Amino acid sequence: MPQYKAPLRDIKFLMHELLDAPQALGALPFHAQNETADTDLMNQVLEEAARFVETELAPLNRVGDEEGCTWHAGGVVTTPTGFKAAYDKYRQAGWTALDADPEYGGQGMPHLVSNILVEMLNSANVAWSMYPGLSHGAYSALHAVGSDELKATYLPKLVSGEWTGTMCLTEPHAGTDLGIIRTKATDNGDGSYAITGTKIFISAGEHDMAENIVHLVLARLEGSPAGTKGISLFLVPKFLPNADGSVGERNGVVCGSIEHKMGIHGNATAVLNFDGAKGFLVGEVNKGMNNMFIMMNAARLGTGLQGLALGEVAYQNALSYAKERLQMRHEPRVDPAQEADPIIVHPDVRRMLLTGKAYTEAGRAMAMWLALSIDVEHHHPDEAKRKEAADLVALLTPIAKAFMTDNGFNIAVLSQQVYGGHGYIREWGMEQFVRDARIAQIYEGTNGVQALDLLGRKVLMDGGKKLQKLAGVLQQFVEENEGDEELAPYLDALGKAANQLGSLTMVVGQKALAGPEGADEVNAVAVDYLRFFGHVVYGYLWARMAKIAAEKVGAGQDRDGFYLAKVQTARFYFAKLFPETKALAATIKAGNESLAVDDRVFGLERPLVGT
Amino acid sequence: MPQYKAPLRDIKFLMHELLDAPQALGALPFHAQNETADTDLMNQVLEEAARFVETELAPLNRVGDEEGCTWHAGGVVTTPTGFKAAYDKYRQAGWTALDADPEYGGQGMPHLVSNILVEMLNSANVAWSMYPGLSHGAYSALHAVGSDELKATYLPKLVSGEWTGTMCLTEPHAGTDLGIIRTKATDNGDGSYAITGTKIFISAGEHDMAENIVHLVLARLEGSPAGTKGISLFLVPKFLPNADGSVGERNGVVCGSIEHKMGIHGNATAVLNFDGAKGFLVGEVNKGMNNMFIMMNAARLGTGLQGLALGEVAYQNALSYAKERLQMRHEPRVDPAQEADPIIVHPDVRRMLLTGKAYTEAGRAMAMWLALSIDVEHHHPDEAKRKEAADLVALLTPIAKAFMTDNGFNIAVLSQQVYGGHGYIREWGMEQFVRDARIAQIYEGTNGVQALDLLGRKVLMDGGKKLQKLAGVLQQFVEENEGDEELAPYLDALGKAANQLGSLTMVVGQKALAGPEGADEVNAVAVDYLRFFGHVVYGYLWARMAKIAAEKVGAGQDRDGFYLAKVQTARFYFAKLFPETKALAATIKAGNESLAVDDRVFGLERPLVGT
Repeated sequence: MPQYKAPLRDIKFLMHELLDAPQALGALPFHAQNETADTDLMNQVLEEAARFVETELAPLNRVGDEEGCTWHAGGVVTTPTGFKAAYDKYRQAGWTALDADPEYGGQGMPHLVSNILVEMLNSANVAWSMYPGLSHGAYSALHAVGSDELKATYLPKLVSGEWTGTMCLTEPHAGTDLGIIRTKATDNGDGSYAITGTKIFISAGEHDMAENIVHLVLARLEGSPAGTKGISLFLVPKFLPNADGSVGERNGVVCGSIEHKMGIHGNATAVLNFDGAKGFLVGEVNKGMNNMFIMMNAARLGTGLQGLALGEVAYQNALSYAKERLQMRHEPRVDPAQEADPIIVHPDVRRMLLTGKAYTEAGRAMAMWLALSIDVEHHHPDEAKRKEAADLVALLTPIAKAFMTDNGFNIAVLSQQVYGGHGYIREWGMEQFVRDARIAQIYEGTNGVQALDLLGRKVLMDGGKKLQKLAGVLQQFVEENEGDEELAPYLDALGKAANQLGSLTMVVGQKALAGPEGADEVNAVAVDYLRFFGHVVYGYLWARMAKIAAEKVGAGQDRDGFYLAKVQTARFYFAKLFPETKALAATIKAGNESLAVDDRVFGLERPLVGT
Repeated sequence: MPQYKAPLRDIKFLMHELLDAPQALGALPFHAQNETADTDLMNQVLEEAARFVETELAPLNRVGDEEGCTWHAGGVVTTPTGFKAAYDKYRQAGWTALDADPEYGGQGMPHLVSNILVEMLNSANVAWSMYPGLSHGAYSALHAVGSDELKATYLPKLVSGEWTGTMCLTEPHAGTDLGIIRTKATDNGDGSYAITGTKIFISAGEHDMAENIVHLVLARLEGSPAGTKGISLFLVPKFLPNADGSVGERNGVVCGSIEHKMGIHGNATAVLNFDGAKGFLVGEVNKGMNNMFIMMNAARLGTGLQGLALGEVAYQNALSYAKERLQMRHEPRVDPAQEADPIIVHPDVRRMLLTGKAYTEAGRAMAMWLALSIDVEHHHPDEAKRKEAADLVALLTPIAKAFMTDNGFNIAVLSQQVYGGHGYIREWGMEQFVRDARIAQIYEGTNGVQALDLLGRKVLMDGGKKLQKLAGVLQQFVEENEGDEELAPYLDALGKAANQLGSLTMVVGQKALAGPEGADEVNAVAVDYLRFFGHVVYGYLWARMAKIAAEKVGAGQDRDGFYLAKVQTARFYFAKLFPETKALAATIKAGNESLAVDDRVFGLERPLVGT
C-alpha cells in the first residue's frame, strides 16, 4: 500500500527561504494582532497537520476507493468505513476552523497555512478531503456576501465542522454553460424562496459525516433575465435550523442517486432534486455568478492543490519503489552480489522521477506564493498592495488549477509507469492516484475553461496589465542576477521565454481584435498559452530556488543534500521540461487556421453555419 | 454507452490508395496461388469482420468491465457474461484461422488483413480480444520453431480456436529482466520436462472459453548457464492431449489467483503455479529468448494496435458527443433558436478531436504498412526484398508499440475531456477507454524498453543501416515532390526533421561510444528519441496521404469530403502535433547530464556506487 510523508522540509524552505512568509504576514495587522503568523506556531501547526493526515487519513485512502459511497432508498448515503470517525477527529481537533474568521469561531490562521494543510490532506486522501474542502468554499462565499442573519446562523456550524457545505451549480444540460440553468426560485414572500430543479455532480452532496448540509445553489429567480445576468445564489439547508441552532425540519432537497465514477470513490457525487425546497438569498439578486466565483476561485486553487498533492504522493511512492526494485544490470554495478540493480540507477527511470520532483516542487512554490498573496490581498493595510496581490492571485489562479492538475495527472501516470506491470494492479495503489487525479482536470471549470479565463479574461480583457506586472517582477529578477554564472543559463532561457510570452500575447491579441473570428483565435490557442505561461512561472521559481540553494551549497551549509537537490532539479527542469515551450510557441503561432476545418472533416453532412 | 463503427472507408483508402496492397500481395506466390490477396475477397472479409465486432463484441465491452473475471476455489476462472458465447461464434466463423497456415487448417490470408481485424477487435472490446490475441502469439512461435510432432498436435487446435494459448514470461521478481527468472525445467528422460515455478501477469492465463490452454513458458533447464543464455521455451498444456487429440489428464499447472486491475477487467490476468507440470521443449535448448521474441514481436505490434484501436473508438465517441452536446454560444451561431451551440464549433474542442483523428489515421497507415511488410518478409521470392522488409519491420515495431500506445492513451484522455464531467462517469464508457488503454504502455515491454530497443538495438547496434534505408525512402519522396506547392510546407518540415533525426542519432551514437557512461547516454534519451522518430514517420505518411488526397480534391473526385478531410488533417498534424519535435530535439541534445544527479537528490544516504 502506498505511503505518504508530508514534505515538511520543502514546505519550510519555501515558507522561510523563498517567500519569507513570517515577515510578509507580520506586515498584516490582522495576523500581527492575532499572533497567528508566528513562526513557531505555524511550524507547530504544520507538524501536527502532517501527523494527522499521515496517521488518520492516508490509511483510509484505499478503503475509500474499494468501498466507495453507498446510496440507500430515501436518499440516504453512507461513506466508507472510517470516514466519519476520521472527520469527527478532524473537526474536534479544530482543523475545519484553521483559517476561518475568529468572529465565527475560527482560528484566523493565514491562508498560506491552510493551503499547505489542503495539499497534505489531498495527498493522503483526496476523496475524504473534498468533504471539508467543499464546506470551506461554502464558508467563503457566505462569509463574503451573506447577510448578518445567515452568517450568524450558518457560519459557526461550518467553521466547527458540525455542518458541511456544497456548491450546487451543474445541471444535466448545463456544465460550463451556467447561463442556461433551469433551477428556479420563487419568492415565498417571507424572506425565503422556494427552490425547484435538479443539480448533478454535487461533490459531498449527501453523506453521513455531519448532521446537516448547507447547499449553496445557483437558481434563476422568477422574472429575472435570461443568461448569466439572471442567476442568484441561494442557501438551501438539508435540515432547516431551529431557533436554538439545532437541526429542525427536513427540507425539500433529496439525493436521487450518486454517480459511479472513475475515481474519488470515497466522495459522494450526488444528484440533488430540489422540490420547492426552502432557500435563502445569499448576496444580491442576479449577482449569483459573481458570488459563486468567490467559492469557485477558492475551489480552483483547491483543485490545483489536488493535482499538486497527487503528484507529490505518486512521486514519493515511485521513488521508494525505484530504490527497492532490482531489475537489469547497470555499469558500474551497485552491488555485484545482487543479481540486478535497483532501477533508480537507469537514467530513464530518473527522468520519470525527476519530472515528478521538478513539477511538484515548482507547483508547491507557486501555490504557496499564491496563498500568501491571498493573505496580503485580504489584510494588507495599503490598498495598492492589496490590489497588486489581487492581480497576481487573479492571474495565477487559472494556471494553478490547470497547470498543476495536468502535471499532477501526468506525474501520477509516470509514477505508475515506474512500477511496470505492478503499477496496473489495484493493490499497489498507484492506479488509484491516476484515477483520482483525472477529475481535477475536469471539474471546477475544465482546464480548457481555465485557459480561456487566463488568456481571454485575465490577460487580453485586462489589456495585458496584470501580465506586464508579473513580467516586471521576472525582469527585475533577471536583471538583478546578471553575471551570476550559476544562474546564467536559466536566466537566459527564462528571459527569452518571458519576452516570447509577451510577443505571443501581442500576436494573439491582435488576431483577437482583427475580425469576427477573433474569439476563435483565442479559443484555439488558450490551452497551449496557459502551458507556456505555466513554464515561465515555474522557470522563474526554479531560478529563484536555485539561487538560494546554490548560495547554501557554496557556503558549505548543505548537510543533508537538500540544497544540492534543488540546484540539480532546477538544472533538470531547464534541460528537460522547460523546452516544451519551443513546441508551444510554434503551436500558438499556428493559431486557429488548422482548426478551422471544413465541417465535412467531422462527418457533418452540411455546414454547421449556413452560407 | 459508446458506439463503434469500423473505419472501413479509411482502411480501404490505405489499402488501395496508399499501399496498393493487392498488387504488393499479388507479387507473393503464396498469396497469388491461394488467391487470398484478391481485392474482392479482402474487402468482403473486412466488411464481415466489421459486422461481427460491431454487433457481437462491442456490446460486451461494458459488461466485461463491470463484471470482470472471477476466480473460484481450485483455480477455476469464469469470464464475464457473453464472453464464451461470442468466442464460440468467433471461432466457428473461422476468424481464429484467418491468417494461419493452410497446412494446419488456416485460411492463409495476408497479415495485412488479420492486422486490420485485430484493430477492429480491440476497438470493440480489448479485454475479450486478448484471448484470441494471445493464442495467435503462441501459434506463431510454435509454427516457427516447434517440432513437427508438437505442431501436428497443437497447431490445428490453436488454429481452430478450440484451444487457446498464453505467453508465460514474467515472475514476481523478473519482468523486464527475464535473464533472472527462476522457473526451472528438469529433463524427465522421456522427451518431456518437469516445469516448476510461478509465473505472474499471464493474460488469458485461465478461463472458461476453451477446453484447453497451451502455455508457452520460459524456464531454465537444469545445468543451463545463468542469464538470458540459459533460458529455454517449453509448451505446457493445461490438459495433456490424448493420442486422438482429445483432452486428457490435467497437468500440474494451476491458477493461484487473478489480479484486480485498473482496466481490461474482462481478461483474466493469472498467477500460474507450475508444480512439476509436464512440458515439451519448443525450439532448441537455451534459445528460449530468441523463440520468445517470435511471439513478442507479433505481440508488440498487437499491443500497438490496442493503442490505435482505443484511440479510434474514443475519438469516434468524442466526435459524436461534440456534435450533440450544446454548450456556450459561438459567433456566428449555429442555430439561434437553440440556447447553445454544439461544442464542436469551439476551436479547442476541435483541437482535441483533430489530435485523435490525426494520430489515429497516421497510426493506421503505419500499422498497415508494417503488416504488409510482414507479408513481404514472409513470402517474397526475392531474398533482398525479404531482408528489406524485415529491416523495416524490425525498425518500426518498437515505434508501433510505444508511439501508438502513448498516443492512444492520450487520445482516450482527450476524448474523455471532450465529455466534461460526464467523461468521468462510468456509465458513459469513456473512462473505461482510458483505463483499458493504460496497460498497453506497460506490458509486452514497457514503452521505455521499446525505446531502448529502437535506439540501442535497432539503430545504434546496427550502425544506423536500417535507419539510413528508411531515411532514403523519405528523402526520395521529398525529392520526387519538390515543387509541389500543396506539399511544400510539409516536405520542408519533414526534410528538416529527417535530417535532424540523422544528426541526433550521430550525437547520441558518439556519446554512446565515448566512455563507460555510454549506455546511460542511450538510456537517457531513448524515450524522447522514439517520439521524435515516430513524428518523422507519421509526418512522412501524412505528407503521402495529403498528396494522394489533394490530387483527388483537385480533380473534383471528392464527393463525401473524405479527401478534403485528409488534406486538412495533414495540415493540422504539421501545424499542431509535429512541432513537438522542436522540444524533443532539445531534450535529446540535453542528454544524460541533468539526469546524472547526486544520489542524495533522491534521498539516498550514501552514493549508490562507491567512490
